[in-house]
Amino acid sequence: MPGLSADSFVLSDLSTAEVEASERVHGALADDLRRLVDVAIRTNAGEDDVARVRELVQQATAVLEQDASPDPAGLKFNHEGRSWNWGNTVVGVRNAMAPPVVLQWGDDGAVRSQVTLGAAYEGPPGCVHGGVSALILDHLMGETASAGHTRLTVTGTLTLRYLTPLPLGDVHVEARIAKEEGRKVTVVGRIGPGGPGSEPAIEAEGLFIIPRWASDESLPSDVGSLD
Amino acid sequence: MPGLSADSFVLSDLSTAEVEASERVHGALADDLRRLVDVAIRTNAGEDDVARVRELVQQATAVLEQDASPDPAGLKFNHEGRSWNWGNTVVGVRNAMAPPVVLQWGDDGAVRSQVTLGAAYEGPPGCVHGGVSALILDHLMGETASAGHTRLTVTGTLTLRYLTPLPLGDVHVEARIAKEEGRKVTVVGRIGPGGPGSEPAIEAEGLFIIPRWASDESLPSDVGSLD
Repeated sequence: MPGLSADSFVLSDLSTAEVEASERVHGALADDLRRLVDVAIRTNAGEDDVARVRELVQQATAVLEQDASPDPAGLKFNHEGRSWNWGNTVVGVRNAMAPPVVLQWGDDGAVRSQVTLGAAYEGPPGCVHGGVSALILDHLMGETASAGHTRLTVTGTLTLRYLTPLPLGDVHVEARIAKEEGRKVTVVGRIGPGGPGSEPAIEAEGLFIIPRWASDESLPSDVGSLD
Repeated sequence: MPGLSADSFVLSDLSTAEVEASERVHGALADDLRRLVDVAIRTNAGEDDVARVRELVQQATAVLEQDASPDPAGLKFNHEGRSWNWGNTVVGVRNAMAPPVVLQWGDDGAVRSQVTLGAAYEGPPGCVHGGVSALILDHLMGETASAGHTRLTVTGTLTLRYLTPLPLGDVHVEARIAKEEGRKVTVVGRIGPGGPGSEPAIEAEGLFIIPRWASDESLPSDVGSLD
């Protein structure tokens, strides 16, 4: 698999305490950016106000660019067994595009999440974009296949059945392992409006693969799904 | 289908010229925001710089919030046959989460797009999140099913086959109609690295449905896919 191997994981000398301090600082910025992206869609501001806002945004960008890596965040890990993928589109702590999705690992092996999706996640009028549901399900199902990050998996196939439109607002997602056979893990998932136990708007089934190279013992212990 | 009907489309009294002027102003802001979201992932800025940036972002948000709708952007249309969905996660002109995807409609009925995906679209280290590929394919395939916005369709099922990791950077997406049968349209799509003609990293097949209510003659002419 070109572009992906055991070398894709970068050992960092940050301690877990340092990682968590950094996540608090940059996670708060991502929260602010999420609000700005959202109101930029909903605003009726005229040309002059938008020009003023663009100046502020460009100033902010210049400050952050003074010292920035040219590379994406990637997946890093430390000697304490902590790993972090700050840029991930679904769960990345620094990524304002990520809703963000916070995973709840159940004792029953299921992975669940309660997410609020606003104006930036719209597809059909007032509804969650079908592809956003696919994005979240793909991620959550991959995490499920990784069985609590005890093994590394990649998506093989993913099938989504759209049953009914999903209104923007609170949504509940959950996934569980349906079958395991050698390096193949079948996961089923669903997303629906409101909280746990709601009727699904979309059902999904995915086949996740444990790649041969992922048995390499040099891999960090806490890696999980490569979504 | 709760939450979605012919009433979901809102007639606006904006002229097409006004819509396009507004798209230039707010589209430029979305471009700026996209750069800010990207560098917020890659920056090594320390706590003080991040605090300064948060102040700028909060000021910008306050300006836009002075006059903002509580509602998502929705899908609007005017008497000139122009429609717009500014908040759409894939193609929304005002949505900084949208890469954005600009559609190229081929004479052969295929829909193509050339997109550059940066740090905010990461899944596996250095690679496009599998769910982001699903998001873009779902949208492009839905647009394809709409046959140049001559009919309205919704996603029924979508199946994705992940062949190889897709590196971040330039990607090419294309889709075409494979079969039509009554209200069912089968579309195939692919996404791969680089430009047209590259090997696909992900192949997809989708079944799109023309809903019964979409034959309502009160629908605007330029609506297309409900993704």
